[in-house]
This record gives sequence, structure tokens and C-alpha cells, in this order.
Amino acid sequence: MEIKQAIITGFMGKLKDRFSEYHESKTPEEKIAAVAQVKGAKGVEIVYPYELQDLDSIKRTLKKHHLGVAAVNVNIKGEPEFVNGSSSVNSKTLRDKAIQFICEGMDVAARLGADKITCCPLSDGYDYLFQVDYQQAWRNMVSTFKEAARYRKDILLFLEYKGSETRVNCYLDTAAKTLCMIREIGEPNLGITIDVGHALMVGETVAESICLAQTSTTPYYIHINDNNRRWDWDLIPATRNLWDYLEMLFYLRKFNYRGWVTSDMSPVRLNPIQAFERTIATTEKMIRMVNRLDMKKLQTMMKEGQTLETLKWLEEQMLR
Amino acid sequence: MEIKQAIITGFMGKLKDRFSEYHESKTPEEKIAAVAQVKGAKGVEIVYPYELQDLDSIKRTLKKHHLGVAAVNVNIKGEPEFVNGSSSVNSKTLRDKAIQFICEGMDVAARLGADKITCCPLSDGYDYLFQVDYQQAWRNMVSTFKEAARYRKDILLFLEYKGSETRVNCYLDTAAKTLCMIREIGEPNLGITIDVGHALMVGETVAESICLAQTSTTPYYIHINDNNRRWDWDLIPATRNLWDYLEMLFYLRKFNYRGWVTSDMSPVRLNPIQAFERTIATTEKMIRMVNRLDMKKLQTMMKEGQTLETLKWLEEQMLR
Amino acid sequence: MEIKQAIITGFMGKLKDRFSEYHESKTPEEKIAAVAQVKGAKGVEIVYPYELQDLDSIKRTLKKHHLGVAAVNVNIKGEPEFVNGSSSVNSKTLRDKAIQFICEGMDVAARLGADKITCCPLSDGYDYLFQVDYQQAWRNMVSTFKEAARYRKDILLFLEYKGSETRVNCYLDTAAKTLCMIREIGEPNLGITIDVGHALMVGETVAESICLAQTSTTPYYIHINDNNRRWDWDLIPATRNLWDYLEMLFYLRKFNYRGWVTSDMSPVRLNPIQAFERTIATTEKMIRMVNRLDMKKLQTMMKEGQTLETLKWLEEQMLR
Amino acid sequence: MEIKQAIITGFMGKLKDRFSEYHESKTPEEKIAAVAQVKGAKGVEIVYPYELQDLDSIKRTLKKHHLGVAAVNVNIKGEPEFVNGSSSVNSKTLRDKAIQFICEGMDVAARLGADKITCCPLSDGYDYLFQVDYQQAWRNMVSTFKEAARYRKDILLFLEYKGSETRVNCYLDTAAKTLCMIREIGEPNLGITIDVGHALMVGETVAESICLAQTSTTPYYIHINDNNRRWDWDLIPATRNLWDYLEMLFYLRKFNYRGWVTSDMSPVRLNPIQAFERTIATTEKMIRMVNRLDMKKLQTMMKEGQTLETLKWLEEQMLR
Repeated sequence: MEIKQAIITGFMGKLKDRFSEYHESKTPEEKIAAVAQVKGAKGVEIVYPYELQDLDSIKRTLKKHHLGVAAVNVNIKGEPEFVNGSSSVNSKTLRDKAIQFICEGMDVAARLGADKITCCPLSDGYDYLFQVDYQQAWRNMVSTFKEAARYRKDILLFLEYKGSETRVNCYLDTAAKTLCMIREIGEPNLGITIDVGHALMVGETVAESICLAQTSTTPYYIHINDNNRRWDWDLIPATRNLWDYLEMLFYLRKFNYRGWVTSDMSPVRLNPIQAFERTIATTEKMIRMVNRLDMKKLQTMMKEGQTLETLKWLEEQMLR
Repeated sequence: MEIKQAIITGFMGKLKDRFSEYHESKTPEEKIAAVAQVKGAKGVEIVYPYELQDLDSIKRTLKKHHLGVAAVNVNIKGEPEFVNGSSSVNSKTLRDKAIQFICEGMDVAARLGADKITCCPLSDGYDYLFQVDYQQAWRNMVSTFKEAARYRKDILLFLEYKGSETRVNCYLDTAAKTLCMIREIGEPNLGITIDVGHALMVGETVAESICLAQTSTTPYYIHINDNNRRWDWDLIPATRNLWDYLEMLFYLRKFNYRGWVTSDMSPVRLNPIQAFERTIATTEKMIRMVNRLDMKKLQTMMKEGQTLETLKWLEEQMLR
Repeated sequence: MEIKQAIITGFMGKLKDRFSEYHESKTPEEKIAAVAQVKGAKGVEIVYPYELQDLDSIKRTLKKHHLGVAAVNVNIKGEPEFVNGSSSVNSKTLRDKAIQFICEGMDVAARLGADKITCCPLSDGYDYLFQVDYQQAWRNMVSTFKEAARYRKDILLFLEYKGSETRVNCYLDTAAKTLCMIREIGEPNLGITIDVGHALMVGETVAESICLAQTSTTPYYIHINDNNRRWDWDLIPATRNLWDYLEMLFYLRKFNYRGWVTSDMSPVRLNPIQAFERTIATTEKMIRMVNRLDMKKLQTMMKEGQTLETLKWLEEQMLR
Repeated sequence: MEIKQAIITGFMGKLKDRFSEYHESKTPEEKIAAVAQVKGAKGVEIVYPYELQDLDSIKRTLKKHHLGVAAVNVNIKGEPEFVNGSSSVNSKTLRDKAIQFICEGMDVAARLGADKITCCPLSDGYDYLFQVDYQQAWRNMVSTFKEAARYRKDILLFLEYKGSETRVNCYLDTAAKTLCMIREIGEPNLGITIDVGHALMVGETVAESICLAQTSTTPYYIHINDNNRRWDWDLIPATRNLWDYLEMLFYLRKFNYRGWVTSDMSPVRLNPIQAFERTIATTEKMIRMVNRLDMKKLQTMMKEGQTLETLKWLEEQMLR
């Protein structure tokens, strides 16, 4: 595997939750400069439209700091009119606006030298039973993303799934549901963004979700963080689920993953730069740990169902 | 919709969990006779091979009691050699035995006048990380069910998903994953068994899962029960999640569901016959409640996003 | 029982979550005026210090609209310096500031004619393992609330528990933990705020938590809403867990609860005034449903373990 | 700390769940002999009455194998008449039988040289809403355990909590609820059994629960295993939640825990002897890892809120 680590720029500015606010506001350029301070960071994931109003300035800033662009994150949930959904709603006008955002995001990605955009349709869901027609919502989403994907084939459109938040139920809740939708859309330039925390939160084993994408030959892109399996806390990776993280990296090595792995860690009560340095350093350490493993030996033990031997061997390899 | 209610015969005999046993053992014929005592029960779901050793006797008993067969439930987890999985394991010998069970179950279903078998591969999963190769397991399952499905096209093979139990993680965990697998198998005689409790337990909204199957034109078959969304408790329907149950029936009416709805309720600490009568009577009442609804009005309110009006109207329609 | 319904004023203004903002900002006086528009609302729960800067103006506005004060909600999490906790932290300076807020809140409550304040210490918790000394944090909290409670005995101090948010783990996570703390503090003017959604989210049955408080002779105060048992979604009551809500009201009737029941429902994507009207109307309807019940009959069936008869009877009493 | 590791004998025999059976039946003496084969095992936890019918034979067998008795586990859920509860039910006859079991278990413990019994009242709970009177059930439990505890003061009675299983809700669900009950019972010879998996399953941080017991000066006894925080899977410790396990041991060291730590790991699909060897070896390794830590340094970093430094330092100390 050949992993480059990026950071979602949004986490470098002001953060909030329902009850509090954290850190100071920053301009997009300042956020990029902050990313550049993080040892090991090679690129950014940056939000369209909110952080990409002045594209030339962003390009200059990225160039100045020698940072690449892992992906443009197209936000189709933040506009006031999108609070009840955008890609899934019955209003064609609203869906068209979502499509427009995605297409513009693709153009921006191309101009930034990125090969993909990623989109997490978090307001597309429901809070109450009997609130929406699930079948119609699904069809609307398929139609929205199909039209968007066809806009230009040279940029990949990655769909990011999440079970909840901001809606009680988001439509695109699991890796499998996302792959169902991608198959139904049927365009060649679709991919799936697998966020470690989103997978844990809906009860998935991250490595298994990666295998599912790999088997269906769907491109995947990784967001890293950790949580307690109950909510998307965006903690520093491997601070709760160390073995899951190592297992994920084992499969990324096995499948020879080459590309960006992007921090979706939220440093609300931590120093952002130091917290991202920790995220990157931990990930680098885990990559080294996995790269040290005798793959053949491990795969043979797994194939032969030698579970206890595997656990013992991993403990010896990994722990002091 | 046109619903006939059936009961899984296994729940009429001796039940157990990790710590206790409940009720007396019964022969399959006695279990069928018990089902016949339940007011409103029109059929059974019965387990191959364990309850179908003497097929002629079972046929006679069913005929005597005027009971139909909703489905033959093919058990591919109960044999001692299946504890680590059957459809997903690397041993072709074991997989062949699972295939044999399914094919024999199909033959038995045909002889009993049923149109389908249902199979819930609960031992196909894992307990530890690094225990299995997820990709290989998936391929093994696809191959197993493909070979089984091709055995005879006149009997439908329904796959039943569940997130956990007996394995910490079962491969076929969600409706969407099951639909992914069905699509990959690519045979025309596949369907999905949607168990209300299994859906709730993995965070699904049952009605949404039914819509997903409907949209993908995959036949679905319903198991009913209820739980607290954390574990598959197999409680009496609508005793915890009343609105979810009504919403499911609303969509079954909308899609004009015609067929069996089968009790997967476990009467561990209740009188089984009375508990199944409660299950059936509650379901019949809910069906009447849903049939009374002005569908056009409800669908219009939903389409127009009149959530508060919908909630108010449903309360007036449903509650005293 | 004799229930008066109040509304938390904060939900009448601008709301936010991690990703979006909802509705317009309002002054405290405008929020009170909005509450006054809600049919059935008899009072408010209002936040100190943020909504009570001009106490005379608030008093006048409440009087003008004939609204009472259920409780003053003392916020000890919102100040920037409180993000890592206030009542539990090692800094005596910060704890003193929290104590000061609570004492001032008590004075304000007295001047508003309220008999209690309520305090939900949501930033008192942790996100990472090895982040805090749990024992020290507990002792700090006990000391903080003891000192605050002793400030004046004529105002009750209610502690509100919640499992998570904003911290991954809040110290005061369950009803039982809160009762442990109240006993350890050992002052007579302490109570527990039981929020329906907080109880559901940590796996409690709300009615059982009320019984626990009742048995320990701890005063309790009720916040109403609903959720899917996984997160504190602050939905309209009984829209997900109808039976839990009815059971809670059954015990409030049994224990002859006299006092405020306050809406902690968050109308993020709904019209706030209409959503609170729905909340209050639903609650009133459920109260009528429970008041209609033959208590003696129900308690006898429960005492005798007639579960199936109880379920049948409740269905007849409650559903059309 | 000074830890001796024991094994619950029951896991050495035939195991079952709802769907399958695992391993062969063994006599209690054979189970003890099996424990003796496990490298590092110094004692047993053994079940009264089912494994202690022939006390002399058990004593001889234990002596022969140089095994101690960590605790007698008094089972008050297994009798057919206990399926709806024993310590909590309204029938004084049944409660008396539970009391008798506990008292006899205490006598047996004394004769085996153990200082305590442990009791996990898993059938004391409910499955349906409106099924029980929670207040009466609580009072019944308090009365049962009070009467039992007073039987003899030289043997400690430990109560083990668990959120679910076999009942949808068990009354004694969390550490805090158990401490509430212990305080209400008010006898000096009560303790709390903290099972790592039970704590994880109800959302507790194990180390925090231990601190809660320590602070309230309630004796505690530890059961070890692991799970995915959703169900009590009884996995090998630290295979899912490594950091939680290390943190727990850190506090046991800090509080100078001296006594038994007992495997409550269920080797359903594993070789039992090898699985327990893994459990013990992993635990021994983790103890060494924790014993190696500079306690002063760690506690200072925690006290000063140096979270990122702590995480970095722990990674260096623990991982290769």
C-alpha cells in the first residue's frame, strides 16, 4: 500500500455542536496554512462551496504549502433550503440545485488537480415515521446522483454513508446500501467513501466493509477517526478500537491501496494541530506495524481457522 | 393486501437460551396440532431437516388441521460441524452439505405445496477480528447459494438477514447487504426474508427495508415480532414499536402484499398458544386499523411534507 | 396527578447542530411570547445566565403572558472555559464559577417564584480513556453540588442526567448514578430531573427510573420528548415509544405527581409553535387515556403476572 | 496489585445458546480437572447448587489439583420456577427458596475456604412494559438480599449486575444501580461483581465503574472477558477493547487490588483449555504492561489534562 495522509480543512476552524463552540474562525487560506503545520500532512479535503469561493487564492495557498487535494467535499446539506434533504426530496428545483453543487464541485476538483469529489448527503433522511415515502426518496436520490455523475466522467463521485446525523435516519446508512445505490445508478465514475467511525457506528467491521467494496470493484476512499461504536465522535484513530484499525490497514495492504487516507477527526477540546499530528503519527505507526507483518503466515492462519494462534501471534507482533 | 398468518412450529416446543429451558419437548406433529389450536393461524413455517423426518406424517397432520405451509425453513447452522459456518466456509465438503440441505428442503417444500424455502445462515459470521477472510467468505456464500438456487427454479429461496447471533457478526446483517448478495448471485428465484426484529436490531426502519426490496423487485417474506432495538427478543408485535408496525403494514397495503406473514415470536415465559393468539389478534387489529386509513389523504400529507398534520391525524385515527 | 405543561424557552430561538442552523434568533422576551402562543403551555423553563440578563423585563413578560416558571435551568457548560467540564474539574477557580452560577440561578429562581433550578452538567465527562481520574472527578462534583445546594435551602437543586453529549461519556449518565451522587452529597434540597429521552438512550425504562426516584424519596421533575433509543433526538413524545410514554404517565398517576412536565422537544425542522402544540396536545391526550384506566384492575393484573391479559386489555383501552 | 486468576467451571462443560450446543458434558470434577490443565489458573468459581452436590468430592478434587475457590456462584435463576424471577417476585415462597439457595451457598463457600459468594439475578427483570410493578420488585429484591446477607456475616455476598439476558431488562443493570441497592440493603457484608463485558454492554467505562465502587468503599470482584459493547459475547479479554482493559488494570494497580480476577469467557467455538490459556496469558501480559508504567508520570499527565501527551506516551509504552 502507498498511503498519503490528508486532513479535512473544516476541522481547522471554528467547530460547534448543539451546545458549545470551539476554537476560532479561520479563512480557508488560514485553515490550509494550519494543515501545512501538521507534520506528515500531505494534502487536504476541502469543502465546496463554502471554502472554495476564491479558487485562485486557494490554489496559490495549496501550492505555497506543497499540499495536494485528496478530494473536494461537496456539501449538499448546509444551505437553509436543504435542511429537509436535497438529493432525495420531491422538489426538482431543490434536487437541481444539489446537482449543480456537485457538478460545480467536479469542475473545481478538476481545476485543483483532484481526481474525485466526495459527498455525504446527511440531510437526506427522516426523523419521524410516516414522514416520507421511502421508495420515492430512493428514486429521487438515484436520479440526482445519476445526473450528477454523468456531468463529467473524468472526475469520480464518491458517496459517503452514515447512519444518523443530522437526521435520525439517513437514507445512505451502510456500506451495503451505498453499494446498492451505486449499482442502481449504474455510472462508471462512482465510488464509496468509507469513514471508519460511520462504519463502527452502524455495527460494521471496517475491514469487512472494505472487502465488500473491493469485491464489487467499487473504488473506495478512507476517512479515519474512532468512536465508541454508538455515535460518530470523530476521535483520534485507534484510541478506542485499536484492533479494528490494524485489521483495516491489513486489508488495505492486502489490496495494495494506493491513495489518500483523510483525517475526519474532530479536535473540539484539543489543540487542532497537535491532535492531527497525533492522528497522523498513530496512523503511520500502525501502517509500519502492519507492514512488518508476515502476510503469508497471517493469511494461512486465518485460512486454516487458527483463531487462537492468530490472536497470540498478533499480540506478540503488536504489543510490548 | 391479503395476509395469511402462519407460525414457526419450533416455538411450540421446548425453548432454551444460554441459561434456561422453557416448556416441554413436542414432536413435530404435536407442534402442528398446537398451531392448529391458535385462533387465526392458517399455516406453519417448519424446519428442515429436524421437523421433517417423516414427511408423510407431517403432510397428514397438516391436512387434518387444515394448515398450509408458508415456507420450509432450512436450517444450515444446527449441525455440530456447522458451528463455524456452513455456506461461507472454505471447506467445499461442508458447503456441499449446506447445499444438499437446501436442495432437499426445496424438494420437501414442493411436496408440501409451499412455494418457497427460507434460510437464515446465522453461524456464517465471525466472533474475533482477524478470524476470517471477509472477501473469501462472501465469495463462498455467493457460490453456495447460487448452486443451491439453480437446483430447481420452481421453488424460491429466501435469504433471511440478521446482524448478530449466534455469531458476534453475521455476514448477512442487513436488508441492503442481502440485496447485494442476491444481485451478485444473479438467479431469478431468490427472495429476502425480512424479520421485523432483525431490522429493528440493526437500526433499520422496517418499512424502509420493505421499500428497498420492493424497489429492487426482490420478493420479500415477512417474519413478525418486536424488540427494544438492541437485541432480537422476539416479543409480541407492536408491544414496543407500535408505529413502526403500523407503518410496515401501511406499505404492505400500498404494495398490495399477498401472502404469508409468519410469527417469529418466542413465548419463553408465556403460554405459547395464548401468546401466539395475542400475536395474531394484534396483527389482525393493526391490519384493520391500516385498512381503515384514507390512503390518498395520508400519501398526500406525506408527499407535501405535512409531518405535524400527519402525526396529528394518525393519532386521531389510531388512538382512543 | 395534576400536570402543568411548560416549554424550555431555548427551543423557541435559533437552533444548531454540528452541521446546520435552524430558525431565527429571538430575544428571551420574544421566546416567552412564542411560548405564550402555544395552546396549553402554562409555563417556561428558562436558562440562567443567558436568558436572564434583564430579570425585571423577563418577570414583566411572563406576567403579561400569564406564564409560570417550572424551573430555572442553570447552564454550567456553555462558557468557553467550561468545555472540559466545570463541576468536576480539578481547578477550584472553575468549580467556584460553576457554584456561583448555580447560586445566582437559585436567587433568580426565587425571584421568579420558581421552587427549583435544574442543572445538566454535560461537559463534565471525558472523550478519551486515560483522560481523567474518575474518582477525583466524582469527588469534585460531589463537593461542587454540595456547596451549591447549601447556599439556600428554600430552592431545590435538580440534577439532570445524560449518558453522552457533548462528552463521549458524561459522568452523570443514569438515574441510578444520579441517585448515588445525591445520596453522597447528602443535602435535603436535591432532586433528579428525568428526561424521557435521556432515559431511553441509556437503556432505561422511564417508568422504572421514576419508581427508583420515588422509592428513594428523591423529588423528580420530568422532561418530555422521544427518540429511537440510540441518541437524544428530542422528538415529539410518543411518536416512537408510545407504550413507554403511557407507562410513565401511569406511574405518575399512581404516585399522584403534581407539578410541571416540561417539553424538551427540539423542533429543528418543524414549525416550533405547531410542534410544541403537538407535544402538549399528545401529552394531554395520553394523560386522558391513562386517567380513564381502571387502576385497580390494571394493578391487579400486573400483580398477578397476567401479562397477556394486560397487553390485550391495554390494546382495547388504548387503540381504536 | 496482586492478582490470582480463576476460571468459572461452567464454561468447561457443555455450552449452549438459543440455536446450538457446543462441547461435551462434563461432571463438576472433570471440569475442575480441566481448569487444572490451564496454565496459570489458580482457582475456580463454581456454581451452587448444580456443581456442588457432592461437596466432599469437589473438595478432594480441588485439593488434588491445588486449586483455590475464588467464589461460589449461587444460581437463583436456573430452576424452572425461577424463570419469571426469584429475588424480586411477589411470592414469598419463591423468594424464600432464593434466600435458601444463597444461605446454603454461603455455607458451602465457608466449607470450601472461599470468602464470598457471587449472585447474578438474571431472571429478575421483565420483557414487556406494564408487566411488573418496578417499585414492588425493587423492594422485594432489597428484602431478599437483606435477609440472605444477614444469615452469616463471615461470608461476603457479591451482587453481579447485567443489563439484559435472559430478561429484556434485568433490574440490576448497572454498577450504580447495584450500589444503590447495596446501600439500601445496608448490610456490611455486601460487594459488587463487576463483569467487564456487562459494563461495556451498558455503556460503562469499566475503570470508571471500579472507581465508583472504590469511592463508595464497596468491595468489588472482577469478571473478565470482552465484547463489541452491544451484547455480552464473553470474548477473550482485550481482543476488542484493548485500551479499556489496560485502563481497568491501571486502576486495579492504583487501588492495590489483591484478589481473584475470574475468567467469564465463553469458548463456544474454541478449544476451551487453549482459549482459557489465551485469556490468562493475555491478562498476565497486560498486567506486566501496566506494572511497567511510571504511575506518577501518568497520573500527573492525567491530572494536568495532557490528553495528547498521554495518548502518545501510552502508545510508546504499549505498542511495538
